[in-house]
Amino acid sequence: MNATMLSIEKEFLAFVKKMMAYKEAVSLMYWDLRTGAPRKGAEQRSETISMLSSELFAMSTSEEMAAYIGKLSNKEAKESLSERTNRLVEECKKEYDLNKKIPADEYKEYVTIQAHAETIWEEAREKSDFAMFLPYLEKLVYYNKRFIGYWGYKEHKYDTLLDQYEPGMTVKTLDEVFGKLRQSIVPLVKDIADSLNKPSTDFLYDTFPKAKQKEFTLQILDQMGYDFDAGRLDDTVHPFATGINPGDVRITTRYDENDFRMAVFGTIHEGGHAIYEQNISKELVDTLLCDGASMGIHESQSLFYENFVSRHQGFWEHNFELLNQYAPDQFDRITLDEFYRAINESKPSLIRIEADELTYPLHIMIRYELEKAIFNDEIEVKDLPQLWNEKYEEYLGVTPKTDAEGVLQDVHWAGGSFGYFPSYALGYMYAAQLKQSMLKSIPEFDQLLEEGNLTPIREWLTENVHRYGRMKEPLEIIQSATGEGLNVQYLIDYLTDKYRAIYQLN
Amino acid sequence: MNATMLSIEKEFLAFVKKMMAYKEAVSLMYWDLRTGAPRKGAEQRSETISMLSSELFAMSTSEEMAAYIGKLSNKEAKESLSERTNRLVEECKKEYDLNKKIPADEYKEYVTIQAHAETIWEEAREKSDFAMFLPYLEKLVYYNKRFIGYWGYKEHKYDTLLDQYEPGMTVKTLDEVFGKLRQSIVPLVKDIADSLNKPSTDFLYDTFPKAKQKEFTLQILDQMGYDFDAGRLDDTVHPFATGINPGDVRITTRYDENDFRMAVFGTIHEGGHAIYEQNISKELVDTLLCDGASMGIHESQSLFYENFVSRHQGFWEHNFELLNQYAPDQFDRITLDEFYRAINESKPSLIRIEADELTYPLHIMIRYELEKAIFNDEIEVKDLPQLWNEKYEEYLGVTPKTDAEGVLQDVHWAGGSFGYFPSYALGYMYAAQLKQSMLKSIPEFDQLLEEGNLTPIREWLTENVHRYGRMKEPLEIIQSATGEGLNVQYLIDYLTDKYRAIYQLN
Repeated sequence: MNATMLSIEKEFLAFVKKMMAYKEAVSLMYWDLRTGAPRKGAEQRSETISMLSSELFAMSTSEEMAAYIGKLSNKEAKESLSERTNRLVEECKKEYDLNKKIPADEYKEYVTIQAHAETIWEEAREKSDFAMFLPYLEKLVYYNKRFIGYWGYKEHKYDTLLDQYEPGMTVKTLDEVFGKLRQSIVPLVKDIADSLNKPSTDFLYDTFPKAKQKEFTLQILDQMGYDFDAGRLDDTVHPFATGINPGDVRITTRYDENDFRMAVFGTIHEGGHAIYEQNISKELVDTLLCDGASMGIHESQSLFYENFVSRHQGFWEHNFELLNQYAPDQFDRITLDEFYRAINESKPSLIRIEADELTYPLHIMIRYELEKAIFNDEIEVKDLPQLWNEKYEEYLGVTPKTDAEGVLQDVHWAGGSFGYFPSYALGYMYAAQLKQSMLKSIPEFDQLLEEGNLTPIREWLTENVHRYGRMKEPLEIIQSATGEGLNVQYLIDYLTDKYRAIYQLN
Repeated sequence: MNATMLSIEKEFLAFVKKMMAYKEAVSLMYWDLRTGAPRKGAEQRSETISMLSSELFAMSTSEEMAAYIGKLSNKEAKESLSERTNRLVEECKKEYDLNKKIPADEYKEYVTIQAHAETIWEEAREKSDFAMFLPYLEKLVYYNKRFIGYWGYKEHKYDTLLDQYEPGMTVKTLDEVFGKLRQSIVPLVKDIADSLNKPSTDFLYDTFPKAKQKEFTLQILDQMGYDFDAGRLDDTVHPFATGINPGDVRITTRYDENDFRMAVFGTIHEGGHAIYEQNISKELVDTLLCDGASMGIHESQSLFYENFVSRHQGFWEHNFELLNQYAPDQFDRITLDEFYRAINESKPSLIRIEADELTYPLHIMIRYELEKAIFNDEIEVKDLPQLWNEKYEEYLGVTPKTDAEGVLQDVHWAGGSFGYFPSYALGYMYAAQLKQSMLKSIPEFDQLLEEGNLTPIREWLTENVHRYGRMKEPLEIIQSATGEGLNVQYLIDYLTDKYRAIYQLN
C-alpha cells in the first residue's frame, strides 16, 4: 500500500472511531434513561440524545465521509486495503447512500413525526384508541413509501424495507418459508387445542420474590458464559441488551412476582444477545463492524439460548434443583417432568411478547403479511385493525377485544420500523438451523445441558457466528455455519417433535 | 435589539446548548465509570470521555466561538442583550482567553502528562514512593508556571491559579484570613489536647450494616430537601456529587460498616452540593451559567449542611431517635449529649479528608502555603515531603511516618489542580458567614433543626445563593447575601464557642 493510501485509511479509521465515541455516549444515555435516570432530567436527556444522534447522522452523511468513501472504494484501493477496511468502507457507503438519498428537510420532518408518534401511540394504546394514532401511522407509512421511492427496489417495494434489518432478505424468500412454517404450525396448534394431555400450570403463578428470582437468573447468566466483568444486569420496564462498548454489554430485565418466567426466560433471552456482542472479535473494535450482523442473526442468538437451551429438558435436569432452592414452597411438590411440560405450555394468545415458542411465529406472520400488503399498496392503513383481528381469528383462533390487545400492542410501527418484525421469525429459523449444525460438532449437546456445561455451546456460537460481527452478511454466516442457505425445515421438525411429545399426540 | 443581533444571539445560544449536550454526555459517562461500569469497558470509556471532552474544548476555543464573542462583546451589543446573555458571553470569553493563550502543542503535552501523572501517583501513594511521582509533579509545576507566563498576573503568580477556582481571590486576602484563622485555631487545638473532658467515642466504631446506614441517610437527604425526582444516590469509592443536567443531580457515597460517620456526614456533604445545583434558576438551563459560582461557593453549600446543620446539637435532637431505630444496639446506651460530643471530637490527624471540622482548615493552610511558595519560586518541588512534614509538626503537632500519609495523600496535584485547595477553607468561611446572616432572617434556626424542618433553611440558601448559578462572582454572592465581603471572624467565633463548650474549656 502506498503512503498516501495508508494515510487516508488512517484518517478514515480515526473518523469512524470518533463516530463510535458518539455512539457509545448515546447508548449509555439511552441505557441510563431506561434504568434509573431521574424523572425530572428525562426531557433534557432526550434532547441531548437527539442532539448527539444528529451529530452522528451528520458525520455519516458528511462530505468528509463521502470523500473517504470515494478514495477508498476504487479498485486500486480495494486491492491494497485489508478485508476489514474494505468491509467497513462498504458498510459506511451503504449507510451514506441510504441516508443521503433522502432530502434533508424530508428526513427532519420524518424524525419529528417519529418522535411524536411514539408518545401518541403510548396514549392511544392506553386508551385503546386507534383513531388517535391513525394520522401518525399514515404519515409514517407515507414517508416510508417516499423513501422507498428514493432508494429504489427490485421486485417488491417491501424488499427495500426488509433489507434495512436483514440485508439480502426478500418477500420471495419469506413467502416461501413462512408458507411452509404456517402449514405445519397451524394444524399442530389445533391438535394441541384438542389434546387431552395438557400440562398443569397453576404453580407457575405462585409468588416468587423478585430478589430471589434475580439471584437465580444471575447464576444462569454465569452458566451461559455471560461475562460480568464486561456487563451488568439492571431493572427496566421494557427489557433490552445494549452494547455500550465492546467491554460493556449490559442486560436489563423486569420481574413479575407472580410469574417468574418473565424474568428468567427474559434475562436468558437478553443474555443471548449480550453474549453475542461480548464475543465479537476484538479486531473489529472502534468500527461499525463491531456489532451484530443483522437483527435476524442477533435474534438467532437470543432465541438459541431462550428456546434451544433454557426450554430444553436437559437444561432443567441440571437447574431445577437450583431453582427449587430459591422458591422451595413453589416447586417442592412438582416433578421435573411436570415443570418441563408447564414451561412449554402452548396456547393461542393475543399478545406477541407473551406468546409461547410454538405460536410465536404466527404473530410475526400476521404482521409481515399486513406490512407487505401496505407497502405493495394492497390495503389501507385505516383498515389495519379489522384486518389484524381477522388474521388473528384465522391463524390463532382468537380475536382481540380491543385494539390495545390487537393492532396497537407493539411499538415498532410507531417508531417507523416497518420490515423489522420478520427478523424475529428469521432469528428463530436461523437458531433451529444452527442447532442442527451444532449437533454435528457437539453430538453430546443434551448431555452438556444436563451437566450444566454450556461452555462448548457458547464457543461453537462464537466460532461460527459471534466473532464475525458485521464482517459477513447474515446469509453468509448461515451458509458457512450450516453448509446451506436458510432452511425452515429444521424449525418445523423441532417444533413438531417437541410439541407432539409434550402433548402426547401420536 | 436589531434583527441581526437577535439572530447572532440565537445562533450563539444554540452553539452553547450544543456544548452543554457534550458536557452532559461526559458527566454521565464519568458518573457511570465511578459507580458501576464494568471493568473491561473502562479503558474504552476513558478514551471516549477524552474524545468528547476534546470536542468540547475545541468548541470553546473555536473560531466560531471567537466570532460570537467578538460580535456580542461590543458596547452596542452589551446594551441590547439580556443580563443573562451578557454574563454568558463574559464567561465564554474568559474560558476562551485562558485556553487560547496556551499554545495547542503545549496544552496537548500537558494533558498527556496529567493523564499519566494520576496513574503514577496512585502507584506512588500505594508504595509511599515520592521519588517515583517527583518527575511528574515537577513537570506539572513547570507547565503551570509557563501557563501563568501566558496568562499573566498582577501581584502574585499564584493569584492567577487561585482565580481559576475562585474568581477574584488573591494571596493578599488569603494570607490575611488564614493568618487570623490560624492564630485562633492553633491555641484552641492545644487547649483541647490538654482538656480533661474528652468525649468517649468507642461506640462510634460499632458495626452498623451498610443497608441500614443507607436507609437512614436517604431519610436525612429527604429532610434536607434533596429532590429524588431530580437525582439519585449510588455507591462509589471516592464520593462526589454531579450535575448531569439541571433535572438530574446525582450523589455518590461510600460506607464503612465500622464507622457510620463516613456515609452519614459524607452523604450530607454531597447532598449540600447537589441541593445547590438542583436549585439553580431554570432560566439558566442550557448555558454554562447553570453551574456553581465557584469551587468555594460550592463547598460553602456542602459544608453548611455538613457542619452547620448535621453537626449541630439541634439536628440530633430531632434525628438521634431515628438513627437509633436503624442501629439500636449501638446507640441504646448512649445519651444525646454523649453522641453530640463524640461526633464532634477534635484531634490532630494526618489525613485531610478524615479531619474534624476544627483542625480541617489547618490541613488546607499547609497546602496553601506550600503551593504559594512553589509558584513564587521560593521552594523546590523535591523538597515538598520534608516541608510538608515540618508544617504538620508545627501546625498540628503530628508528623507523617510515610509520604503516603503525608505529601502523597491527595490526588489534586497529580491532576495539576494547583490553587484548588484554598476553596475548601474559603467554603468553610463563606458557610459560617452565611449562617450568621441567615440567623437575621431565621432567628429560630436552632428550633427548626430540633423540629426537623429544614425547608426554610434550604429556601434561604436558594434565595441568596443557589438560584444565581454563575450569574454572579463568588464575592458578589457573599456581599449580597451577608452585606459584607469575606470575613473570617464568623468562622473563628463559631469554632471557638462550639469547641470550648464541647471540651468544657473555661
